[in-house]
Amino acid sequence: MTHRELGSNVHIDDGATVGYEYDSDVEPTVVGADATIRSGTTIYADVVLDRGFVTGHDALVREHTTVGEDVVLGTKSVIDGSARIGSAVSIQTGVYVPPETEIGDRVFLGPHAVLTNDPYPLRVDGDLRGPTLHDDASVGANATILPDVTVGEGAFIAAGAVVNEDVPPETLAVGVPAEHRALPDGVAPENVRR
Amino acid sequence: MTHRELGSNVHIDDGATVGYEYDSDVEPTVVGADATIRSGTTIYADVVLDRGFVTGHDALVREHTTVGEDVVLGTKSVIDGSARIGSAVSIQTGVYVPPETEIGDRVFLGPHAVLTNDPYPLRVDGDLRGPTLHDDASVGANATILPDVTVGEGAFIAAGAVVNEDVPPETLAVGVPAEHRALPDGVAPENVRR
Amino acid sequence: MTHRELGSNVHIDDGATVGYEYDSDVEPTVVGADATIRSGTTIYADVVLDRGFVTGHDALVREHTTVGEDVVLGTKSVIDGSARIGSAVSIQTGVYVPPETEIGDRVFLGPHAVLTNDPYPLRVDGDLRGPTLHDDASVGANATILPDVTVGEGAFIAAGAVVNEDVPPETLAVGVPAEHRALPDGVAPENVRR
Repeated sequence: MTHRELGSNVHIDDGATVGYEYDSDVEPTVVGADATIRSGTTIYADVVLDRGFVTGHDALVREHTTVGEDVVLGTKSVIDGSARIGSAVSIQTGVYVPPETEIGDRVFLGPHAVLTNDPYPLRVDGDLRGPTLHDDASVGANATILPDVTVGEGAFIAAGAVVNEDVPPETLAVGVPAEHRALPDGVAPENVRR
Repeated sequence: MTHRELGSNVHIDDGATVGYEYDSDVEPTVVGADATIRSGTTIYADVVLDRGFVTGHDALVREHTTVGEDVVLGTKSVIDGSARIGSAVSIQTGVYVPPETEIGDRVFLGPHAVLTNDPYPLRVDGDLRGPTLHDDASVGANATILPDVTVGEGAFIAAGAVVNEDVPPETLAVGVPAEHRALPDGVAPENVRR
Repeated sequence: MTHRELGSNVHIDDGATVGYEYDSDVEPTVVGADATIRSGTTIYADVVLDRGFVTGHDALVREHTTVGEDVVLGTKSVIDGSARIGSAVSIQTGVYVPPETEIGDRVFLGPHAVLTNDPYPLRVDGDLRGPTLHDDASVGANATILPDVTVGEGAFIAAGAVVNEDVPPETLAVGVPAEHRALPDGVAPENVRR
């Protein structure tokens, strides 16, 4: 069964599920205008999507997630619930966003980027805390962000980096574990369109 | 066509396939009591799942796999056949477990962890041998474990590590390639609930 | 709706989609003889697949892609359109191939390998250029290849490597960022079946 409220000009492919009732007592999925949900994608109840939401195939959005305007969620990416996503965010293919994550506006998550929320799984009880990615942060392909890390405004995480401490604004983080460097000239704030 | 034997209190979502007949001569999928199989998941014939098996969405379990009690298999994770999985194992989202892998009890595999079984694919013929993960081992997000590696009891593989040699019990492996260190105090065996 | 032309001896599972009409004006998907397309897989219109194409489950091939003979595309792998793939290529589970990628013959892509095509996403406008992988190149599990990188004939990318510059033929690339070394004796060209 599904439970949902759709805005105008919403296209849902055959084989997509919007309003997956994960529990018996849920609020509907709210889908804003001008959305496109492609086949194989599942969106839970208790999710609120602002206008212009577009997915690839086989994406998943779990409960208690809010998403801003004009967000793209790539093929096979997972927002695993209890997340807040800003506007004009671009999430590429195969990305993982865990519960208790906050993502600002115009954030980019490259293919297979992995965010995490549990520092010592099965070993130590504790609150789960995902990363916080501030506005205009960019995370490269296959990068890993550790729990409770804050990535500053306009920071740039290189492909394959493993980020285990906070990254200052407008800083490049590169390597395993990630070291901090100045942004390359070509993407420094004074040279970049926003 | 599907071929299966279900225990009591088994819930299978619409859009999940249990007992995928990959060949004309197969044994049924055996699903123990109290299982939940979510939509998009495919479980092959010739698989035996003990009680309490729970999946996310779009998971895959191929043939000749046995799984112990109370195992969680996350969304989009793949057990690619010919694997033995212990009890109380937690496999998070997007994990890959290749053929010829052995996983003990209470093992944790973080999101996007990748196990492998072929050291020189297409170059050298040879037996495929996946890793062996002993009881209480924990593998961090997006870590990679190379073929035929043994991860000792209670060892902890850091997020993003690439593990190319055996890891002793109760040891931390971190980096690319992974180096071995003492476990952090907070997760040393004497301080951890089991 | 789907739009396709199938060769002889083509098997398409229930729950697979061949000829996904992503637009109103498309050419059919052409599937050569002796293909097997497993459940959950989606293949767009405007794709040409030569004979012997085999997929796992939940794979995706988008528009304007050509694929040579006897190619295997693993479970949950994505070819994201505008790609040219040679013959006898083996793409394992969960691989990402971006637009504007060229892959030669007998190339191997290990599980969760990630190719990329955008050096400074959302920051700098520019052409997208994926990597070029020449014949017999092999990419290890969970490796990341940066945009516009060329991997030479017979080169071998180690598991977990992050490759940010061209790799010469018959060379091993290992680490983050990848360093170049001689191939191990066992896989040097003079010792390897081809």
